[in-house]
Amino acid sequence: MQNVDEDTITQIVLARHAEATDPRLKQIMTSVVQHLHAFARDVQLTEEEWFKGIQFLTDVGHITDDKRQEFILLSDTLGLSMLVTALNNRKPMGCTESTVFGPFFVENAPQYQNGDDVANGAKGEPCFVTGRITGLGGEPVPNARIEVWQADSDGFYDVQYEGATHNHGRGMLRSLADGSFHFKSVTAESYPIPHDGPVGRMLNALGRHPWRPAHLHFMIDAPGYERLITHVFRSGDQYLDSDAVFGVRSSLVADWRRHETGRAPDGTQIDTPYSTLDFTFVLNRASATVESRAA
Amino acid sequence: MQNVDEDTITQIVLARHAEATDPRLKQIMTSVVQHLHAFARDVQLTEEEWFKGIQFLTDVGHITDDKRQEFILLSDTLGLSMLVTALNNRKPMGCTESTVFGPFFVENAPQYQNGDDVANGAKGEPCFVTGRITGLGGEPVPNARIEVWQADSDGFYDVQYEGATHNHGRGMLRSLADGSFHFKSVTAESYPIPHDGPVGRMLNALGRHPWRPAHLHFMIDAPGYERLITHVFRSGDQYLDSDAVFGVRSSLVADWRRHETGRAPDGTQIDTPYSTLDFTFVLNRASATVESRAA
Repeated sequence: MQNVDEDTITQIVLARHAEATDPRLKQIMTSVVQHLHAFARDVQLTEEEWFKGIQFLTDVGHITDDKRQEFILLSDTLGLSMLVTALNNRKPMGCTESTVFGPFFVENAPQYQNGDDVANGAKGEPCFVTGRITGLGGEPVPNARIEVWQADSDGFYDVQYEGATHNHGRGMLRSLADGSFHFKSVTAESYPIPHDGPVGRMLNALGRHPWRPAHLHFMIDAPGYERLITHVFRSGDQYLDSDAVFGVRSSLVADWRRHETGRAPDGTQIDTPYSTLDFTFVLNRASATVESRAA
Repeated sequence: MQNVDEDTITQIVLARHAEATDPRLKQIMTSVVQHLHAFARDVQLTEEEWFKGIQFLTDVGHITDDKRQEFILLSDTLGLSMLVTALNNRKPMGCTESTVFGPFFVENAPQYQNGDDVANGAKGEPCFVTGRITGLGGEPVPNARIEVWQADSDGFYDVQYEGATHNHGRGMLRSLADGSFHFKSVTAESYPIPHDGPVGRMLNALGRHPWRPAHLHFMIDAPGYERLITHVFRSGDQYLDSDAVFGVRSSLVADWRRHETGRAPDGTQIDTPYSTLDFTFVLNRASATVESRAA
């Protein structure tokens, strides 16, 4: 008969997965069990600590609903989300790098024309964004589908407001024939991730702050190219070196130029302070595998 | 400025914990991050698989309430609970080994005298349990507090019945002056762990069954000795080598002798089938540390 003890248990658990019919699931669960057990052995986890862990995960589960995803927040703050993003988006030098998707994307955001104001009432200083979508050889990518979303000047996305109608500071537009695009919005500001729950308590216990440096989210799709999910970060932000979710890649930091008053990029005269941002996104060619899968 | 990529991220996350004031928390979270990242790298986790994992944990969180603890079930079925039990209950040879606590213990169960029927209405064939509590040198341990709990013949604990009053098949009694104890109950049967939730789906996908071999739970406390939390398993059970929660240690398997009819150990004449079980529990001396902590 089997005798389960601290030395034999890992192999006994793994042997129990012999009948799994999905080889990938078996591979993943083998690694889960090995690392879970190795963790408990490494730290000689006590029964009280184990129970605190159970309670913590229970709290994470109970605060999670269709508006708040605390497990993603946990994955983000432990660097897992960014690691998975990096592992799955290796690209040739020169392509724009990917970063975390985040929890605030919304399907079916309003469609805009170039030059429109995607802020749509979101609070903040005006910001004029110009850019280009190109391939790795510099060729323009026209008609790319560009989704943009951002927090307002109080650090909240539209979906975070109680009872708010969505679609402030988010929208979809398409690149023009020369690959360029431009829109008006508000200036992104740094903000804390939701930290009134178990993940916030974890950060506090670890001596960490919950802030993310100011950024604009982009998701860009064009036929023949890999989807690009990324941010553009604002240079000079005090949290660039301590993003709570580890999303900052130095190639994604850009100057948001601030202007006191004057003629805005859209030709209008502005008598309040505003900012301008210009960024070029370089897409990677879709691999044959990806293309055939999409077909 | 930091550049977060798949190679640098683990060290960047760990460096962020430099300000943690609790050294044990820092040690635990360092190991959590290292193993979580190593897991993602080992299996080259895809973004779709990551999201399935997020959804799975969300489901585990949402089915968990004050009556059902799916995170403990997950820990149990991955062998983590048993590993933590084993790591924290190393004992000299000859002591009764520990096994998993399980989710079905209830505080303040009824107090019984030796000879009483702890089934208290639980369904099943009569079972007469006799036993002794001793130290490692064979010395009797009188007045030990013995908590016992078990499933009925349908495989359910009292707390699993909707709207049930508790305290069927559970209770507390004390060892006599010679360290012995005896009570009447019902014969334990094998049963499946709750498998209508995400953990059940996981077991199914892994080709695993949810059954536990028949067992009686014991928790034994006596001054000067370490608390013992264990089961006694029923020899011959078909699930002894495939316990869904990996709790079987060969030293904890005992013969449940079956009798068609006859004179029961309590002297009464029984004209239905019944079983008898006899087991000796050998307690480990409490260490000086444990004693001073308890003082």
